[in-house]
Amino acid sequence: MNASVAIQVLPNVQDEEEVIRIVDEVIAYIRSTGLNYYVGPFETTIEGDYDQLMDIVKECQHVAERAGCKAMSVYVKIAYKPEGDVLTIEKKVTKHHQ
Amino acid sequence: MNASVAIQVLPNVQDEEEVIRIVDEVIAYIRSTGLNYYVGPFETTIEGDYDQLMDIVKECQHVAERAGCKAMSVYVKIAYKPEGDVLTIEKKVTKHHQ
Amino acid sequence: MNASVAIQVLPNVQDEEEVIRIVDEVIAYIRSTGLNYYVGPFETTIEGDYDQLMDIVKECQHVAERAGCKAMSVYVKIAYKPEGDVLTIEKKVTKHHQ
Amino acid sequence: MNASVAIQVLPNVQDEEEVIRIVDEVIAYIRSTGLNYYVGPFETTIEGDYDQLMDIVKECQHVAERAGCKAMSVYVKIAYKPEGDVLTIEKKVTKHHQ
Repeated sequence: MNASVAIQVLPNVQDEEEVIRIVDEVIAYIRSTGLNYYVGPFETTIEGDYDQLMDIVKECQHVAERAGCKAMSVYVKIAYKPEGDVLTIEKKVTKHHQ
Repeated sequence: MNASVAIQVLPNVQDEEEVIRIVDEVIAYIRSTGLNYYVGPFETTIEGDYDQLMDIVKECQHVAERAGCKAMSVYVKIAYKPEGDVLTIEKKVTKHHQ
Repeated sequence: MNASVAIQVLPNVQDEEEVIRIVDEVIAYIRSTGLNYYVGPFETTIEGDYDQLMDIVKECQHVAERAGCKAMSVYVKIAYKPEGDVLTIEKKVTKHHQ
Repeated sequence: MNASVAIQVLPNVQDEEEVIRIVDEVIAYIRSTGLNYYVGPFETTIEGDYDQLMDIVKECQHVAERAGCKAMSVYVKIAYKPEGDVLTIEKKVTKHHQ
């Protein structure tokens, strides 16, 4: 697995419930991709093939747009090893949640 | 609770096990503060009082330094409401892990 | 102009001159796109159409890969207004550099 | 010079002119510290001593607060070498603006 990304979509919306509604639609889209993902407090991490992940990141903002979001700030982290394996979500997180 | 922060300490170290060792020492420090925290794949989130959280963020790099880290890149997110409550870790994450 | 992105490619390389060489190749690629861009100390900002910008962001890591980078951490900011104009680089920066 | 930080204060405010007003007050505070700084489209970079920089980062949100900002998201990058020198703003930017 050559890549892992973490994305935070921050709708420029005053009402917190509206923020949560839009963010939940983006997370539902991420779930629908079938890739392994992990929801954290500020960002959702997805792991897989770099090019596929970047297409998913690109689509997340269109999902927010279709959910009615008129303006957004988005923050993305990418870990990429062209010829190797990045640390998995499982290796980075599991031991800290037992 | 007026603030929540998320911190990623990225040691500039080639060996992945050494990265994990240093990051685990930072997480152990965060745990020692007694504040509510949540370890995600790319960052650890802590919630509490803004000023206290920023002192913890500042100390995290000294913890990495004492763990032998000679150079680091650090990425911090801060949510801050001077006179209100930010969304809690629990509200943002729990429903996605059931 | 519906979007603006800022990208930091952080090669996981010990030698600083090698980091600069790889980052300069990414900046040269960004310049070659012909879009308006702005190099800052930690990230390069590009403004234009959202979908085109995301394709450029995706390609930046392949440019670093071809420049010999075996592992990288990348940090991307996106400002996106599906039906409006985001603040321009010129509006956000010029007055602070006179 | 052991550290360099880059900070983006994103007021949770709908009106763009109000965002600019608050951000400009934070930049004015950063200027008042007398340290070398550089305003980019998404973030302002400051270089100097790590501990001093972190105190400035902490104060930036209080400046935004006093400027009337009721809720904010803040994104901070830190480069820190406990016993060495980080790349300077000048080394990272000047050649790209000639």
